[in-house]
Amino acid sequence: MYELLKKDGRAKRGRLTTVHGVIETPVFMNVGTVAAIKGAVSSPDLKELKTQVELCNTYHLHVRPGDELIHDLGGLQAFMSWKKPSLTDSGGFQVFSLAKMRKLTPTGCFFNSHLDGHRVFLGPAESMEVQRLLASDIAMVFDECLPWPCDRPRAEKSVETTIRWAADSLAAPHAPGQLVFGIVQGGVYADIRRFCAEELVKLPFDGYAIGGVSVGEPEETMYAAVEASIPFLPEDKPRYVMGLGVLSQMAECVARGVDMFDCVIPTRVARHGTAITRHGNVAIKAAKWERDHGPVEEGCTCYCCRNFTRAYVRHLLHAGEILGVRLLTIHNVNRLCEFMREMRESIAAGTFDQFRHSLAPPTTND
Amino acid sequence: MYELLKKDGRAKRGRLTTVHGVIETPVFMNVGTVAAIKGAVSSPDLKELKTQVELCNTYHLHVRPGDELIHDLGGLQAFMSWKKPSLTDSGGFQVFSLAKMRKLTPTGCFFNSHLDGHRVFLGPAESMEVQRLLASDIAMVFDECLPWPCDRPRAEKSVETTIRWAADSLAAPHAPGQLVFGIVQGGVYADIRRFCAEELVKLPFDGYAIGGVSVGEPEETMYAAVEASIPFLPEDKPRYVMGLGVLSQMAECVARGVDMFDCVIPTRVARHGTAITRHGNVAIKAAKWERDHGPVEEGCTCYCCRNFTRAYVRHLLHAGEILGVRLLTIHNVNRLCEFMREMRESIAAGTFDQFRHSLAPPTTND
Repeated sequence: MYELLKKDGRAKRGRLTTVHGVIETPVFMNVGTVAAIKGAVSSPDLKELKTQVELCNTYHLHVRPGDELIHDLGGLQAFMSWKKPSLTDSGGFQVFSLAKMRKLTPTGCFFNSHLDGHRVFLGPAESMEVQRLLASDIAMVFDECLPWPCDRPRAEKSVETTIRWAADSLAAPHAPGQLVFGIVQGGVYADIRRFCAEELVKLPFDGYAIGGVSVGEPEETMYAAVEASIPFLPEDKPRYVMGLGVLSQMAECVARGVDMFDCVIPTRVARHGTAITRHGNVAIKAAKWERDHGPVEEGCTCYCCRNFTRAYVRHLLHAGEILGVRLLTIHNVNRLCEFMREMRESIAAGTFDQFRHSLAPPTTND
Repeated sequence: MYELLKKDGRAKRGRLTTVHGVIETPVFMNVGTVAAIKGAVSSPDLKELKTQVELCNTYHLHVRPGDELIHDLGGLQAFMSWKKPSLTDSGGFQVFSLAKMRKLTPTGCFFNSHLDGHRVFLGPAESMEVQRLLASDIAMVFDECLPWPCDRPRAEKSVETTIRWAADSLAAPHAPGQLVFGIVQGGVYADIRRFCAEELVKLPFDGYAIGGVSVGEPEETMYAAVEASIPFLPEDKPRYVMGLGVLSQMAECVARGVDMFDCVIPTRVARHGTAITRHGNVAIKAAKWERDHGPVEEGCTCYCCRNFTRAYVRHLLHAGEILGVRLLTIHNVNRLCEFMREMRESIAAGTFDQFRHSLAPPTTND
């Protein structure tokens, strides 16, 4: 299902075929947590922006509106009017992000719903059943996303569970043609990550993710975790670093052989009034843009930059008009989409290293 | 500047020429209070929806971001990327709506800014100067919008001021080609409305508005106020009922010879989860739409109805995703735009009365 088209150093350009079409990698996947991109951006808008994959959250959709309702309405893609590939996470990230309202057991995780406190149980079988009903193109195994820091005994024990749950997830029923990806965990411990990767590649997954990174650790620690996992994951399968969306960091990961990314950054920083540009993040609310005639980013051809000035977008943000958030979200999604296209093109041209070294230093948030 | 094309009973079909193009009447004008339609709908979106006029608020834009800033950026149309006709109100409505934070004087009105309490003065000269800097296609005279109820002595006195301010507004400098409309006030008192209209038509306004209606009075009282004004306003000028946006009420006014309308209804009810349809208002959050495969309105061809189900829009509204508000806003704006087109066509075809009698009874809000 994955075709490796070109290598440039360790950077890969590939093509992953799914039920709803082909994904050109490296790819950034936009996060539509509850079957909607935050910032009033619709699936048809995403298509117009030429993005490739929409990612949705199993836990959130299970809680509301319910996977069975979405199944009734024709599955996730029909529900949100997205005709291209989709990916669902497994709920494993919520084991981390909702740590205060959940209880882990050997078979899965009890959550107290963040909406109304009612009890929700997700284990490998339950998560895969939700994902089967959602009928995403790519399903992720149910895992435990470890926090940072995390001591070695806990990481060791957790990875044993994650490996067992991965096998259980793969053995569970899937939607027709649904791909399943394993997830490498292991915290900051290189040997545990290696062990996890080696165990997972014994199973015929369609791709492999590196989870438990970008959870608060320093940048170098994050690269080390990626480096500890990558060599043990096959080159002829897609590799996916979960939760990463900073331009320079994605380029560094592509240089290490990563194919796929997802992150809430482009939508989240837009809500805070931040534009992602080639030259770093820009706070559009700042006083210096008050009378600025220029577009949010010079040279950008997105809908926001074609039609509006920094002064207008700034005014909208200050006036609390949600149009401002929508325009910045469109800009940011387009910027990341363009960035991935440039990476694919530079790999194809054998100039990836030049591209990578031309990048602005990371500005991780707003 | 106004060409009367066809009459069908008292209903008129006309054409008003402005600097930024021709307005086909009857027309509904969308309210973009602070140079933005609420609900994350942009000016290019409005163009795609084939709406004709965007209306903005003098008081609000004066307070933030400032008329002088907008002038610097090329005027209102350039600022919000709207290339078609625009109208600015005068601040007279805020004399009514911000009654608790303003003080009337014989020369105008002091407001305590709703943003930070600083003092703002608007009189005929100040309002027209703001509108000149905004460079709208149609400017409205500065008036006092009376509340309902309002006793006769106050209405009499107020209308004297409104007439004087109308003359002062017309005498003030305008932007090149800017049209100026007078506003008939007078509350529920037919003879005062008649007096006001007769005084205003002595001045060479480009159109005449009927203000101080739809401010809480019963529907029949509102029609009576319109009836009391219309006969004294020339047929060969546009007549504009301010603040009205209920479908059946607009049809009743068109039947009485009105050309223009504006209202926040389509955007406001969308924020509350209400769709305006041919058959009345529909609360899309209602449980009965939970699994509904149909579009927000059967037979509607708007972007929302072409792409999404009631179940999906309902889910977005319940999940607090602002995409839900945007989609309903688009639907509602389109519904009103289509409605006005149907009125124009039925007048042209001489079938306006049939159209009017086919309408659902009014559902004024959510």
